[in-house]
Amino acid sequence: MPEHHVELVTIGTELLLGFTVDSNAAFLGQALSAAGVRIVRRTSVGDRPDEIRAAVDEALARSGFVITTGGLGPTRDDMSKGIVADLLGMPLEFDDRVWQAVLARYARFGRTPVESNRSQAMVPRGGVPLLNQWGTAPGLWLESTRGLVVLLPGVPLEMRMLTEHEVVPRLAGRGFGTIIRSATLRTCGIPESTLAERVGDVEAALAPLTLAYLPSVAGVDLRLTAWNIPAAGAAAMLDAGIERLRTVAPQWAYGVGDTDLAAVVLEQLRTAQRKLAVAESCTGGLLGGRITDVAGASDVFLGGIVAYDNRVKEQALSVPAELIANHGAVSAQVAQAMASGVATAFGAEVAMAVTGIAGPGGGSDEKPVGTVWFGFSIDGRVDAHKSVFGGIRTEVRERAVQGALLGLWQRLSVGTAAQS
Amino acid sequence: MPEHHVELVTIGTELLLGFTVDSNAAFLGQALSAAGVRIVRRTSVGDRPDEIRAAVDEALARSGFVITTGGLGPTRDDMSKGIVADLLGMPLEFDDRVWQAVLARYARFGRTPVESNRSQAMVPRGGVPLLNQWGTAPGLWLESTRGLVVLLPGVPLEMRMLTEHEVVPRLAGRGFGTIIRSATLRTCGIPESTLAERVGDVEAALAPLTLAYLPSVAGVDLRLTAWNIPAAGAAAMLDAGIERLRTVAPQWAYGVGDTDLAAVVLEQLRTAQRKLAVAESCTGGLLGGRITDVAGASDVFLGGIVAYDNRVKEQALSVPAELIANHGAVSAQVAQAMASGVATAFGAEVAMAVTGIAGPGGGSDEKPVGTVWFGFSIDGRVDAHKSVFGGIRTEVRERAVQGALLGLWQRLSVGTAAQS
Repeated sequence: MPEHHVELVTIGTELLLGFTVDSNAAFLGQALSAAGVRIVRRTSVGDRPDEIRAAVDEALARSGFVITTGGLGPTRDDMSKGIVADLLGMPLEFDDRVWQAVLARYARFGRTPVESNRSQAMVPRGGVPLLNQWGTAPGLWLESTRGLVVLLPGVPLEMRMLTEHEVVPRLAGRGFGTIIRSATLRTCGIPESTLAERVGDVEAALAPLTLAYLPSVAGVDLRLTAWNIPAAGAAAMLDAGIERLRTVAPQWAYGVGDTDLAAVVLEQLRTAQRKLAVAESCTGGLLGGRITDVAGASDVFLGGIVAYDNRVKEQALSVPAELIANHGAVSAQVAQAMASGVATAFGAEVAMAVTGIAGPGGGSDEKPVGTVWFGFSIDGRVDAHKSVFGGIRTEVRERAVQGALLGLWQRLSVGTAAQS
Repeated sequence: MPEHHVELVTIGTELLLGFTVDSNAAFLGQALSAAGVRIVRRTSVGDRPDEIRAAVDEALARSGFVITTGGLGPTRDDMSKGIVADLLGMPLEFDDRVWQAVLARYARFGRTPVESNRSQAMVPRGGVPLLNQWGTAPGLWLESTRGLVVLLPGVPLEMRMLTEHEVVPRLAGRGFGTIIRSATLRTCGIPESTLAERVGDVEAALAPLTLAYLPSVAGVDLRLTAWNIPAAGAAAMLDAGIERLRTVAPQWAYGVGDTDLAAVVLEQLRTAQRKLAVAESCTGGLLGGRITDVAGASDVFLGGIVAYDNRVKEQALSVPAELIANHGAVSAQVAQAMASGVATAFGAEVAMAVTGIAGPGGGSDEKPVGTVWFGFSIDGRVDAHKSVFGGIRTEVRERAVQGALLGLWQRLSVGTAAQS
């Protein structure tokens, strides 16, 4: 096996029982791929010395490079270190630098370590402790004639920090020439099949990048991946690929990476110096919640009215009772009246409203579960549009939140384009 | 290895790259444990025939019982079946029953299968196809002199359905005598350390059940686990253990299993025939969103006002401007006025309000980030209480939502107790 192939051994009885989802494995998969190292096999075993020993021994024999997570804490479960030290023929020795770090950490929390904590300062001879300022147990970087073994703690935060700050830089120092790296274009409001048709024309030009469609309630992400391409060229190639994809779906592609559509909309409003208010029925507050997840939303977002009951729509949002009687609460007319109503009530230049049928009950032939009307009021201009979403109640609600944000983003984008 | 030990092999390059979190493994861990089968090792490999073959071969040699997920779809990635058939010495044969099921599924979606789809109907001789009404690829139950191999698709829904409807019943038929099963008591509002002190007195009496503390933003769950206890006795033992735990923290233990505190509160209000309204500042709508996640909330929940901006607090909630000026928006006085204001505006007998500092900015020495005031109005009686939550913005907001629900649950519980 080439040196840039690694096997991962994740340790923990909780992983096998399914009490814990192995998110560490996913994190390491992404972090190591980006650093030019490819995980070729992952093995999970329980907190049993014989199982841990067998798994690491076999992985080392196959690949010569093993990363473990778990089994490093200051409890009776802390067994990986001794097992791996024995496998590599590196006897444990007391390391005063590690001990001082343990003492400092205890002091910071006003505690005094007991004698058994000294075991945390035992390091395999010739090994490199990876000091862990986010927890007590250091990681370990151990090399012998059998190969390289890196031991990481199982606590996700500690594992992530040590990977980023200690493991990846050391791997980079070895100069792996090729990497696996991805870039993502986020779209919303266009079905995967329609997107695929549009992408079809440019897909051949994306090579050697590969393309994956990742549908979720937030929309369809397009992920481009550069495989075994020199690091220097990969970033530029990914950037060019993303821009090429954006040209086939400009009115649905709202951002790259992990961009949040709510943050994009808030920034549009901030630039346009407009205040925002929302009126919600079926989403029950989730739209306001999503907007205020963005720190700093308060300079744009005034607030909202959750009009779950129709009387609230009439009294707090001034929706005429006859509109509801004639068209139903889930209608273009009511969505528009809700948007106008909250804009007026709160003195907001921009408002959006959501009214729909999230299910499981309440649907009809004419208005099936998943029907959602969106109303918008922008500087006094009012309009509405409808979507019919699939999925269970939770999904309909989340899609409705994203749909409202998309509708506002598209309207504000057009406004910007018209002005420029 | 005893027959009730199994090894899991999960197949998919996306798993190793970390693009997909291996949630199938966690589901199978729980489902199999509850069925009396224990996963002793899990191996993940990419979509490469040599890797799949080696992993299944080794696992079969060690344990004689292997379950695989992935590599079963009707694409070029569909390779597990042929590899395992070869390992077990069971040649592939055309199975008309499976073919008819494939045809029926295509017909349902108005499509016609092409010749290459016939490969989906090939079944290893002597094997049992596990017909999959949730997708196209059937699972397979294959037994030979080398042992038992069960192949499941990698699509989570299909894997789960086949596990529940086909795999677990067949395992139960083999009469494994002991099981691993858990029960959970949910608490909120009591710190883990305080809970541990109170539990200390009864912990010994819980044996042979083991106890785990599972802290999250929703509170601290107490999970009791019965290990290798005859199935008939485990359920009663778990029930008794949960009731014993409940006695040490009755005012914080709001439910068992996956009970949602919002659903508990809605049921209290339904019983008491009271309507609910909410007023939110720092949670921005999340409290209303959480309440309306519960299907059927509309018979109790009228709606809410998201008063993110102070002018909305004054105008829509009738909070006196001088209260905000004198005490600050995050104060007992304003929390109470918000609760009263929304109760009056919406004609609700019961109302709650949340106003706090979610961060990252806005904190002070007197009111640090995480400070949240809760106001309650119940049949005209108004009061407030304060919590200071740790964590980042998202966590503070989620804890505030749960804290508001807890405060209302406790107040309504006392009311019920007083009446009875």
